[in-house]
Amino acid sequence: MADSNALEGLTQALRRLPGVGAKSAARMAFHLLQHDTQGALQIARALEHAVHSVKHCTLCNTLTELDICSTCANPERDRSKLCVVETPADQAALERTLAYRGLYFVLMGKLSPLDGIGPHDIGLQKLFDRVVPRGARGEPVTADAREVQEVILATNFTGEGEATAHVISQALRSRSVQVTRLARGVPVGSELEYVDLGTIAHALVDRR
Amino acid sequence: MADSNALEGLTQALRRLPGVGAKSAARMAFHLLQHDTQGALQIARALEHAVHSVKHCTLCNTLTELDICSTCANPERDRSKLCVVETPADQAALERTLAYRGLYFVLMGKLSPLDGIGPHDIGLQKLFDRVVPRGARGEPVTADAREVQEVILATNFTGEGEATAHVISQALRSRSVQVTRLARGVPVGSELEYVDLGTIAHALVDRR
Ligand SMILES: [Zn+2]
Ligand SMILES: [Zn+2]
Repeated sequence: MADSNALEGLTQALRRLPGVGAKSAARMAFHLLQHDTQGALQIARALEHAVHSVKHCTLCNTLTELDICSTCANPERDRSKLCVVETPADQAALERTLAYRGLYFVLMGKLSPLDGIGPHDIGLQKLFDRVVPRGARGEPVTADAREVQEVILATNFTGEGEATAHVISQALRSRSVQVTRLARGVPVGSELEYVDLGTIAHALVDRR
Repeated sequence: MADSNALEGLTQALRRLPGVGAKSAARMAFHLLQHDTQGALQIARALEHAVHSVKHCTLCNTLTELDICSTCANPERDRSKLCVVETPADQAALERTLAYRGLYFVLMGKLSPLDGIGPHDIGLQKLFDRVVPRGARGEPVTADAREVQEVILATNFTGEGEATAHVISQALRSRSVQVTRLARGVPVGSELEYVDLGTIAHALVDRR
């Protein structure tokens, strides 16, 4: 857009942000360099820091800087319930309802065969390893794993979210753990992140 | 959104991008950390590099890594014409029409009293210094300045763009330079960047 390889490089780089096309990227680059170089440097530092410090919680798979995130480490959570969500944003939506005090498992994605996203690309195996019922394999179980008695599937009510829930449900069928699904109070085709709190709370109570 | 100060910091930082709200910023941060850490680092490096290497062209005020940008330095451009635009993106839109071979002056903004953006916040004084007519002050003029015979106002046809054009037009009235405005073939209320090339080319030919 202007006479600068650095500006062009920045515009190209910003296009890697989801939902940002060529025009938006050019506007962002222009805005940052002309009006907000401090903001530009803040973003750069935040990116570097996050990439180098954020990892996955050993227990629930969410993004965290700790080995075990604060939710999983909280002794006041009900460890018999494990709510499976697609993303940290979905978990945050459930938390805002104040209607759930159990633990979470964050898949960090959903099954999407058309996009080449299979069971190994999201946290499915980690979830299955987490949900080992008491003595199921005749071997000692970990303190955290043995307590899960109910897995609540809270993947989104989209085609891919439903398929993901189905696969998990099938895989856990042979284990002595109860598997429930959020009630369909959540409008079909929508994503949790954008649903009002009351609807989510109701769906949580009516889980089936 | 998740259990990470670094993630939260990144989400906050991304909100400094124009047009990015809380939800978009959270989605971007999640996407980069989960699926595209290479992209995250690329953006970080591009931001650092651009902030530290991009400056303003001495002659036309656009963003460039050189003292004088390649357009201003191009000996084949018609130095008697100076087209005033708001942003590099607007200049790029004009260039794509292939209907203009003169030089540019890039204001890097527009007058916007409501937002506290006055004459000193955009390149108005630099423009007036650039357009010194031959011997107007009885003093020697620079090689670049003495050649401008026509100033073409190509600010956007928005309220702020029109006001900016008006102020420039008034300020240059006393100098022996012709001041023209893009013809109103460009739909009122729109921004050059989003206008089709034919309309812009027509407006350029019909400048008044
Ligand atoms: Zn955790
Ligand atoms: Zn220039």
